[in-house]
Amino acid sequence: MLNFDYYNPTRIVFGKDSIARLDELVPADARVLVLYGGGSAERNGTLAEVEAALGARTVQRFGGIEPNPAYETLMGAVEQIRREKLDFLLAVGGGSVIDGTKFVAAAVNYAGEPWNILETGGKHVNQALPMGCVLTLPATGSEMNCFSVVTRKSLQAKLSFASPLVFPRFSVLDPVKTFTLPPRQIANGAVDAFVHVMEQYMTYPVNAPVQDRYAESLLQTLIEVGPQALATPEDYDVRANLMWTATQALNGLIGAGVPQDWATHMIGHEITALYGLDHAQTLAIVLPNLLQQRRDTKRAKLLQFAARVWDIHSGTEDERIDAAIAHTRAFFESVGVKTRLSDYGIGADAVDRIVAQLEAHGMKKLGEHRDIDLATSRRILEACV
Amino acid sequence: MLNFDYYNPTRIVFGKDSIARLDELVPADARVLVLYGGGSAERNGTLAEVEAALGARTVQRFGGIEPNPAYETLMGAVEQIRREKLDFLLAVGGGSVIDGTKFVAAAVNYAGEPWNILETGGKHVNQALPMGCVLTLPATGSEMNCFSVVTRKSLQAKLSFASPLVFPRFSVLDPVKTFTLPPRQIANGAVDAFVHVMEQYMTYPVNAPVQDRYAESLLQTLIEVGPQALATPEDYDVRANLMWTATQALNGLIGAGVPQDWATHMIGHEITALYGLDHAQTLAIVLPNLLQQRRDTKRAKLLQFAARVWDIHSGTEDERIDAAIAHTRAFFESVGVKTRLSDYGIGADAVDRIVAQLEAHGMKKLGEHRDIDLATSRRILEACV
Repeated sequence: MLNFDYYNPTRIVFGKDSIARLDELVPADARVLVLYGGGSAERNGTLAEVEAALGARTVQRFGGIEPNPAYETLMGAVEQIRREKLDFLLAVGGGSVIDGTKFVAAAVNYAGEPWNILETGGKHVNQALPMGCVLTLPATGSEMNCFSVVTRKSLQAKLSFASPLVFPRFSVLDPVKTFTLPPRQIANGAVDAFVHVMEQYMTYPVNAPVQDRYAESLLQTLIEVGPQALATPEDYDVRANLMWTATQALNGLIGAGVPQDWATHMIGHEITALYGLDHAQTLAIVLPNLLQQRRDTKRAKLLQFAARVWDIHSGTEDERIDAAIAHTRAFFESVGVKTRLSDYGIGADAVDRIVAQLEAHGMKKLGEHRDIDLATSRRILEACV
Repeated sequence: MLNFDYYNPTRIVFGKDSIARLDELVPADARVLVLYGGGSAERNGTLAEVEAALGARTVQRFGGIEPNPAYETLMGAVEQIRREKLDFLLAVGGGSVIDGTKFVAAAVNYAGEPWNILETGGKHVNQALPMGCVLTLPATGSEMNCFSVVTRKSLQAKLSFASPLVFPRFSVLDPVKTFTLPPRQIANGAVDAFVHVMEQYMTYPVNAPVQDRYAESLLQTLIEVGPQALATPEDYDVRANLMWTATQALNGLIGAGVPQDWATHMIGHEITALYGLDHAQTLAIVLPNLLQQRRDTKRAKLLQFAARVWDIHSGTEDERIDAAIAHTRAFFESVGVKTRLSDYGIGADAVDRIVAQLEAHGMKKLGEHRDIDLATSRRILEACV
């Protein structure tokens, strides 16, 4: 096992009817900004439920945070907070709203141009407004971690930052709030969580059996509940298990003490920035081909994955690896997330553009061995077409 | 899945050479009391290493905290802290030292007689001194939870309390520090962690597959690394995995959203209080017989345990349950922890005395269904002889 630090102070308040508990979770004298995305939080009554729970507190709204939250949008919230002297942020939505809220929390009193937070990965963040979350979309794990990804549209750049100061103080997870989500978002969430686990699991063995088994626990559960969540949208337990699995997939626990990859995410981010694909769609495209390209350096873990997650025990090593990768691709397709660039109308000319963006953003050495150079990324992308 | 709250702000600093990091973890102006147990921390150099890391800070020592830490002993530390105006507690040891330190942290400024903290389960604890841990014995999980068990020798009473205020700020886990532990303590630790998992897992199904699989991950890992830790005491990875598993076994995560039992612990505490057996020895005695007595109410989980943890797939349901219980008993015996009262020179007359203590301490309705009454506890204990 590798040495590690693990720290995660976010309080999880999980279960049906949990939104009412905001009254005990948000300071009584807080001046609250509720941040949200499109109109669905308004239409389905979640915003009203949140505001009712907040009682007599001063509450303002900031809506319109888009998928892949945009710096340009979020700076509007920063201005509103400064102008109205608000002091507590409540994100109501999925990973994009939460990621955006983390950026806003760090930006309000940041010394310098807030874009610098993303350019420097959060290194100079030394304060942030307190924030909480009401999660409505299980997917990214942002509700229980200190990471944030923000896009600057004018630069076609999607960058991330991390700071322990932006751990949510609490996150309310009510599975009932996911019943009305469109199937595409549920499917994206299952794929996103699956790939989050894979980024922390599918590397090389370091004799960390708990981390490995926890990761396999999450993968097995996603394989079970992903399709069920689409088939029976109002099955509480299915949605509860999808929600808790997605949170566990990226709260730091399964990645503590083991090597991590994240090349699929880095390549995927460039695809989203250039072509606007959903984050999960890019992961479903890249991961199977990355596994094929890295089958030698990942061989031991691919064989373990085949045996323990997919119950594949017969055939040569290479046959078992091929089968595990094929099963992974089939899982993504089974929940309706297509796995080739051409499925989204993107042709072979994209490869040069994406590689150029990787180069521009300094992504020349990716993966757990830092040996996915631009030539390897190109081969992965060529296989994605 | 049941509704739940999960909150655990303890920072884990894991790996070899981690003790040096105390300098960044303890406030620079802290006046520190280092609490420890017997002389082993002194003899093996851990105390000196800790004090070197603390540099120029004011540091005092309080040694002699015994296994099953005694109220009478701990009040000496409370007096020293008050007298010397110390303000940060550093527990160096295993679960007993850490549990004791939690009590001291809560007692120093407690309004009222500190024994009341234990009589009321921590309900009235509204402040505590900050504390950190240097764990030297993987077993109880106390390094990453807010629970404490303290014995008052004069009353032969072993009581517990919980408070979020006594979560350690940090815990340093260096597996190398466990190399010199006596085999008995390693064996006890493996059994303790195993039973902690079972208390949260072996109840009835509530459709919580992640919690179930996490629990099974820990059980499988303990079955692997327990005997290895005894056979090859200086195998770093084995000790690292035992240490991380024991921490995970009782940090709240696997018990979030599922029913919990804890009857084995409650009965075991009375055996320790009356006869002085090691905590883990009492668990190894009680658990197999409790599972036999509760085989009907725990049937579904016992069958799952048999299949997934022990790989038992053939035979009738009852045969598989019997085999799983027999394997569990054999695991305890395999690491040298005996599983019958008679192995410790305790006869059938103990049953009445233990049942009387359970009654005196209000333990009349134990278990996940609160239906382990005194008559059931008696039957379990009769089978323990």
